[in-house]
Amino acid sequence: MNMDMDSDKILEILEGNGFAKMIGLEILEVHEGVAKGRIRMESRHTNLYGGMHGGCSYAMADTLAGIAASTYGNYVTTIDGKMNYLLPIKDTEYVYCEAKVVRQGGRIGVYESKFTNDTGEVLATAEFTYYRTSEKIKE
Amino acid sequence: MNMDMDSDKILEILEGNGFAKMIGLEILEVHEGVAKGRIRMESRHTNLYGGMHGGCSYAMADTLAGIAASTYGNYVTTIDGKMNYLLPIKDTEYVYCEAKVVRQGGRIGVYESKFTNDTGEVLATAEFTYYRTSEKIKE
Amino acid sequence: MNMDMDSDKILEILEGNGFAKMIGLEILEVHEGVAKGRIRMESRHTNLYGGMHGGCSYAMADTLAGIAASTYGNYVTTIDGKMNYLLPIKDTEYVYCEAKVVRQGGRIGVYESKFTNDTGEVLATAEFTYYRTSEKIKE
Amino acid sequence: MNMDMDSDKILEILEGNGFAKMIGLEILEVHEGVAKGRIRMESRHTNLYGGMHGGCSYAMADTLAGIAASTYGNYVTTIDGKMNYLLPIKDTEYVYCEAKVVRQGGRIGVYESKFTNDTGEVLATAEFTYYRTSEKIKE
Repeated sequence: MNMDMDSDKILEILEGNGFAKMIGLEILEVHEGVAKGRIRMESRHTNLYGGMHGGCSYAMADTLAGIAASTYGNYVTTIDGKMNYLLPIKDTEYVYCEAKVVRQGGRIGVYESKFTNDTGEVLATAEFTYYRTSEKIKE
Repeated sequence: MNMDMDSDKILEILEGNGFAKMIGLEILEVHEGVAKGRIRMESRHTNLYGGMHGGCSYAMADTLAGIAASTYGNYVTTIDGKMNYLLPIKDTEYVYCEAKVVRQGGRIGVYESKFTNDTGEVLATAEFTYYRTSEKIKE
Repeated sequence: MNMDMDSDKILEILEGNGFAKMIGLEILEVHEGVAKGRIRMESRHTNLYGGMHGGCSYAMADTLAGIAASTYGNYVTTIDGKMNYLLPIKDTEYVYCEAKVVRQGGRIGVYESKFTNDTGEVLATAEFTYYRTSEKIKE
Repeated sequence: MNMDMDSDKILEILEGNGFAKMIGLEILEVHEGVAKGRIRMESRHTNLYGGMHGGCSYAMADTLAGIAASTYGNYVTTIDGKMNYLLPIKDTEYVYCEAKVVRQGGRIGVYESKFTNDTGEVLATAEFTYYRTSEKIKE
């Protein structure tokens, strides 16, 4: 794991995030405004077409974008999220997702997430808007 | 369960949907263009604020909207989804979600989902756009 | 015009809004959290299919939703907007749009807009998220 | 103007687009999956804060993304659009917008648009989903 934020802090954030744990999200990298992760595809992640369920991929994107937003030091809450499904998320051992900042303002932050498969093909994109609370993430 | 579609068919669809099963989605009602369900809040559904994870609620909304779309007889794939988080989804035994058709065209269908708590307060809204495939859901 | 807010104030807001004037938006009603208006369809509003240009209808929806949001007394700025095109906006003398509040929180407000033709058919929907500034609209 | 598609065809498309003409959209470049344009800021484009009206910028983005989508040879209709307002669009002589393909599938295409000012700063982003009709754009 390659990260600028204190890694114990990130792991603690994920520990408190029951849903991210349930879906098996593994964090690969965290930098200012950026977070990358992956999930190993299993049958519990699937929809009835054998691809990753749209809600599972969305949860992955939202969690990573939220971590990217939290690298600026405050807790954030999600205002809204939108996801575009470009290709089925299937036939890959891992599903990768990278979230990065589009713009972080004083209160509002916009982040984009991109999904790729084992060969780097882009399968889906998502974008999230967060409200930065005044509560600092304690070091 | 109150439904117009064959209930065995709906249950079979959910059986094939590993992710919907994992999050514990219970279907309450299915009519033409409409699907309602609920999830009993547990710690595995939560984000680090103790509310339902935004990805979990999104998955619930997407699954129900997809069922509502499938009541017209064909399999559908999600083009995109957008979710608005209005209030934290917490302090409720069950989270309820109702999806209903806004418009189903020949190929494109738009559906909206609304989340409520035990007292009927609206906590979040979502909307989904589906592409109707030419593949019929077998009776 | 049926409005709770001071009508001179609303007209003054629209006077300052060069683009709303240019598209010929006529305000029909303003109440707390609600604003209705209409545009008489002319060739300058059209896309190459002879329907109302998607940007024109979006501008109409955004302006009305912004007026609905401003009924709470503060200036607002748009965080994001999303529009769903359900049917072509054509073959109607007037295009009507009604914007109403989904939820107005302390800082963030979510509004939905609905388009109808002369016979009341729903042609499009849109939703907008606003940030409420601390600047009061002066009476 | 630097374009791969026949330039007369593009100009003809814009001539048939009353609204794009009204807002003064100037096309700078068209390639497969890409379209760039600009608008010279005038008072008729503004909202009450003196910036470009959110509906005007959206119309610009939608028109360019639609042109980018039409470079694949068929007429398209807009399924939905979403715009994120990052910074006020003001204090610039021209507003530039570049639309490019994210993915064009058999029926569904997703396009993103980015707004910049005279100094290249990103002010807003938008994304559009189009349905590709079976009607060919006649050469």
